[in-house]
Amino acid sequence: MNNSYGSLFRISTFGESHGPAIGVVIDGCPAGLEMDETFIQFELDRRKPGQSRITTQRKEQDVFKILSGVFEGKTTGTPIAITIENQDQRSKDYDHLAETFRPSHADYTYEAKYGNRDYRGGGRSSARETAARVAAGAVAKLLLKKYAIEIYAFVSRVGEIKAPHYTELDLSKTEDTIVRCPDPTTAEKMIALIDQVRLSRDTIGGQVTGIIKSAPAGLGEPVFDKLHAELGKAMLSINAVKGFEYGSGFEGIKLRGSMHNDEFYSEGGKIRTKTNHSGGIQGGISNGEDIYFNVAFKPVATIMQDQQSVDKDGNEVRVSGKGRHDPCVVPRAVPIVEAMAALVLADFVLRGRMSKI
Amino acid sequence: MNNSYGSLFRISTFGESHGPAIGVVIDGCPAGLEMDETFIQFELDRRKPGQSRITTQRKEQDVFKILSGVFEGKTTGTPIAITIENQDQRSKDYDHLAETFRPSHADYTYEAKYGNRDYRGGGRSSARETAARVAAGAVAKLLLKKYAIEIYAFVSRVGEIKAPHYTELDLSKTEDTIVRCPDPTTAEKMIALIDQVRLSRDTIGGQVTGIIKSAPAGLGEPVFDKLHAELGKAMLSINAVKGFEYGSGFEGIKLRGSMHNDEFYSEGGKIRTKTNHSGGIQGGISNGEDIYFNVAFKPVATIMQDQQSVDKDGNEVRVSGKGRHDPCVVPRAVPIVEAMAALVLADFVLRGRMSKI
Amino acid sequence: MNNSYGSLFRISTFGESHGPAIGVVIDGCPAGLEMDETFIQFELDRRKPGQSRITTQRKEQDVFKILSGVFEGKTTGTPIAITIENQDQRSKDYDHLAETFRPSHADYTYEAKYGNRDYRGGGRSSARETAARVAAGAVAKLLLKKYAIEIYAFVSRVGEIKAPHYTELDLSKTEDTIVRCPDPTTAEKMIALIDQVRLSRDTIGGQVTGIIKSAPAGLGEPVFDKLHAELGKAMLSINAVKGFEYGSGFEGIKLRGSMHNDEFYSEGGKIRTKTNHSGGIQGGISNGEDIYFNVAFKPVATIMQDQQSVDKDGNEVRVSGKGRHDPCVVPRAVPIVEAMAALVLADFVLRGRMSKI
Amino acid sequence: MNNSYGSLFRISTFGESHGPAIGVVIDGCPAGLEMDETFIQFELDRRKPGQSRITTQRKEQDVFKILSGVFEGKTTGTPIAITIENQDQRSKDYDHLAETFRPSHADYTYEAKYGNRDYRGGGRSSARETAARVAAGAVAKLLLKKYAIEIYAFVSRVGEIKAPHYTELDLSKTEDTIVRCPDPTTAEKMIALIDQVRLSRDTIGGQVTGIIKSAPAGLGEPVFDKLHAELGKAMLSINAVKGFEYGSGFEGIKLRGSMHNDEFYSEGGKIRTKTNHSGGIQGGISNGEDIYFNVAFKPVATIMQDQQSVDKDGNEVRVSGKGRHDPCVVPRAVPIVEAMAALVLADFVLRGRMSKI
Repeated sequence: MNNSYGSLFRISTFGESHGPAIGVVIDGCPAGLEMDETFIQFELDRRKPGQSRITTQRKEQDVFKILSGVFEGKTTGTPIAITIENQDQRSKDYDHLAETFRPSHADYTYEAKYGNRDYRGGGRSSARETAARVAAGAVAKLLLKKYAIEIYAFVSRVGEIKAPHYTELDLSKTEDTIVRCPDPTTAEKMIALIDQVRLSRDTIGGQVTGIIKSAPAGLGEPVFDKLHAELGKAMLSINAVKGFEYGSGFEGIKLRGSMHNDEFYSEGGKIRTKTNHSGGIQGGISNGEDIYFNVAFKPVATIMQDQQSVDKDGNEVRVSGKGRHDPCVVPRAVPIVEAMAALVLADFVLRGRMSKI
Repeated sequence: MNNSYGSLFRISTFGESHGPAIGVVIDGCPAGLEMDETFIQFELDRRKPGQSRITTQRKEQDVFKILSGVFEGKTTGTPIAITIENQDQRSKDYDHLAETFRPSHADYTYEAKYGNRDYRGGGRSSARETAARVAAGAVAKLLLKKYAIEIYAFVSRVGEIKAPHYTELDLSKTEDTIVRCPDPTTAEKMIALIDQVRLSRDTIGGQVTGIIKSAPAGLGEPVFDKLHAELGKAMLSINAVKGFEYGSGFEGIKLRGSMHNDEFYSEGGKIRTKTNHSGGIQGGISNGEDIYFNVAFKPVATIMQDQQSVDKDGNEVRVSGKGRHDPCVVPRAVPIVEAMAALVLADFVLRGRMSKI
Repeated sequence: MNNSYGSLFRISTFGESHGPAIGVVIDGCPAGLEMDETFIQFELDRRKPGQSRITTQRKEQDVFKILSGVFEGKTTGTPIAITIENQDQRSKDYDHLAETFRPSHADYTYEAKYGNRDYRGGGRSSARETAARVAAGAVAKLLLKKYAIEIYAFVSRVGEIKAPHYTELDLSKTEDTIVRCPDPTTAEKMIALIDQVRLSRDTIGGQVTGIIKSAPAGLGEPVFDKLHAELGKAMLSINAVKGFEYGSGFEGIKLRGSMHNDEFYSEGGKIRTKTNHSGGIQGGISNGEDIYFNVAFKPVATIMQDQQSVDKDGNEVRVSGKGRHDPCVVPRAVPIVEAMAALVLADFVLRGRMSKI
Repeated sequence: MNNSYGSLFRISTFGESHGPAIGVVIDGCPAGLEMDETFIQFELDRRKPGQSRITTQRKEQDVFKILSGVFEGKTTGTPIAITIENQDQRSKDYDHLAETFRPSHADYTYEAKYGNRDYRGGGRSSARETAARVAAGAVAKLLLKKYAIEIYAFVSRVGEIKAPHYTELDLSKTEDTIVRCPDPTTAEKMIALIDQVRLSRDTIGGQVTGIIKSAPAGLGEPVFDKLHAELGKAMLSINAVKGFEYGSGFEGIKLRGSMHNDEFYSEGGKIRTKTNHSGGIQGGISNGEDIYFNVAFKPVATIMQDQQSVDKDGNEVRVSGKGRHDPCVVPRAVPIVEAMAALVLADFVLRGRMSKI
């Protein structure tokens, strides 16, 4: 269960960065869904390395293969297994890490937990695992289209550079810039900053904002599996994420209830709220307004600089960054945030079928 | 499963605010644990209403009863069922809500999801449910004591007033002030602010910081059930929570990797990190350093002011706050944050028994 | 999870035979179901001790109390907690068992597993736990009524005395005899045999047959959670059960495929089978025919005779039956078999909502 | 979850008979287990088609590939994904089934459940899926070896021909005959019967007996997840299984308690039972004696004869058996029964780590 997410639309990922393949099994996708393989590849391409100068220069084509669960172009209700072969692995880049723990990576903690580890490229802890999530997320998106639910994400911050609030942006323009910020002016600044950081052999943090539009009222479960609690878990499970907030988030701390509360009104027979500090979720359940949230990413841990560390025996060692890595993770994190949001929503859509007699 | 949390140390809560009782069943607590009932009551008393002038003036004694799972003072490995009877219910305070949706409450969303609801006192969506969590969390704390793991939480912010970083505070002083901030000067300011807000018939948001000390390296699961992802979900599942961050959190966005990375060193045979931007967690697994996190709470939705809303049929109505409510939720949220943190850790301690041959 | 059953219509039972109460939490019952409390009591009364001369003479009224999840006579979609207080406990009857293991009871195995145990009346291993299942099963039956699915069970065998095949019986007559066999002639013989066994201070085994009528085609999951696999698990989880078979069962071993196969035909637009060796299930999924199965119960372990045993330290001891026990468990097992069948079906009815787009 | 089995040692299978591959993901195998690939292949070869004249003549090599979870010959604690490519598919043999339901197959019920299906070779309902179970079961057996737990199975019955009780047999001789019955005389009769049935273009049922030796006392969970309840579910989930019994099973119905009870005695400091009607399980938990059980298999549904059936529209059609099929399934079912038993035990061994403080 440790490598699975979702209760009814459930994915289980497997695979290490430098093993033969990574993959995912989707169990619980209803039968009869048209499988748009072009769309899955499109989503994988948005995440793949080497897509622009501000991402890692590793080249992986991330070609997927569906092994099961689809017949004559439609899902059959049985598990959909998808594999992606690993390519362009420079495992030798990692030989020096067999005995050494890289700062702020998972090397030491995996060793502490399991007593051994596949150290090549981070093994299971590599962000490569997220390719499997993106493939599964694409299937989730196909399911959500049947419900007219739309998932968006964009880069809302790199270092100190912030984009305007999502309501002021044209979300259809996210793919227009390599940094995936729909505001051209902000995007330019972000790219310049990432370029500068990359040249200084360093990395920098950022923020992705997610938005879910047209979700019906009534999705989410009370108590533990609140819609935002699952969104939070899903986002926090992405590599390098350090924080999650939805609606008013941490800013809401400052407000008075009289300012924060979202008053109801009726619009064409539909119950709406005048403001949306709630972020589309009340008591853990969607209210029909936009669901929106921010995800904080730390700077990538692998830097092209020497750092102090220790080996397995506690001896001091110097670790120097090798391999090809992202100076800033957020441009490639956008499709991952979308994928996880889609997986959460697909699960709640199915769970929602159970609420009434 | 909707009302359960945890995979091995698993709790299932039940009950509505104005029903006969609320309660919790703990399934998975190992046999042989001494059940300290005084401690459970102590924890419940920290959460109970009416404990100071800055909390709701409702009086509930929250006396618990253990129905099963304990024999001759020790757990037997079978489910521990705990009930707390509801008292001092003024259900009539809520009669006017049968047909009306309070702004930023769960009234409308429950109606949308289920088609009906127990509207008295918020029913299942009432924060009263958290009493069951606190009782279960107390049992989790008893288990964690066997592992020398310590759980702390305190109020780190009310509105704009912030406490110093936890490393500069004496966490043993949290209970010394009614606001549960261990810094007396800050506490005084917080209390004054809450008093002022209360008198203006309004409410205000706040932040609770949680700290877990002495957790061994190796707790947490890779990929989806990362230690911080479960902590995040657990915290976000608490009523009124809008955000979660751990370690450097949202501040980490600004940093460069060269500043953010936590270099390793060896101290008396133990592997340590020089800094702790990681918040004690790397790759989703504890590294032996302090685990710390912030939880953002919005202002309480019930205010003693008139607000605009609609009824079931979409007609405009005025809703005016009745009942007895908290002007700021964070002082009473401290034991809830601790309880949820304890439940997460207890679960991972048991899951950790599985990692090696 | 150890004390829970079901994936979507999920019950969790708790409680020991001689603790304050036993109970059950039902999580996943859809909102809007009318709660017929009279029916729940009726079902509990069918299981309760002391109902006839061929059952144990213990008197327990098994009065239940609903703590949550029901409002104004209907389920609200939140957990339904039901408790039944323990009465007429003669705990002293069991004092001699604190250090001794009764043959073919769970005393020794609980001790081996947990290191301690509530030995009074069998504690958690007592068949008293099944009262909680019957209460939950009654709620499941109420849900199934909405789908017109009918659940039947009757005593088809006591020792060597067998009832005719269910298709030759009038299942509405099951409650007419104290042994719960709808064939009066067979019932008389069964009762005579049980009387004789009881007078010889012994016990005897039996068999209960379960029948599910009007289940639609399409219930059940392929592979692991086949409809009959879950029925089997559910039945085998009942105290004293030693075997389960459905359709042709163990008799099917003898048959040739050409005799065993159920040929299809069409009847008024509905696809039917001419024979029903499949027991209404093909590939783990219901086909719309009657689902039927047999459940084998061993003779009750508690006999009013001296037996050889050992104590905790391995010393030889004599154990003599005390307390008031059933000479044959099957008459009271009928409502338990029905309850478990109802719980299985209720779960699959909900899971069935997920199979198609 | 529909295609997963196990709570801690958890497998998820995927794949259809005529898709690109079938496979399994094992999540929860502890780190540090030596992966003996030769053994996995050995187990797969015991199940594979075409191994003798009394099995199907289809030729599939069932070569497996490990995609993840193993590094330098040992498990790493991360998911172990195993795939087996499909070969020698004669999909055209099944073209006539696109619109037709074969008697006593899953064609109709899948159609009823999902609205579509991969009809080639039975698709997901094909016994081919069990190859994935056997691969996973081999890993479970490797884990159980660390605990000295031994798993055996053999053919105890074909039609009316029965083998002696397992305690009278040398279980090391099971592989000596193509029918997998360790008693040579019985084996000869069984083979002759299967040959005769095959020549008459028919099929016949059989029984497999499973035995688990050296399991420690204390495995299994009270109430729902009793050791025998999980064994029962696991066995009933195998294609063509119609019944399960353990210990005295259905024969126990006839016995009196005074005969059936297993009296305890002490042997060299170990608590033993004189008889073993309990089948090594009391109250759902192992008591240290041999665990043994019988599994009933119906005759294979595919026969080389014409049968009456209907198509999707309810029109009468004749179905004639094509393809290459087993005249009796039990010889090849032996490794499957062992695999499922090993998976159940591996899961309970891990769950057993949780029972005490």
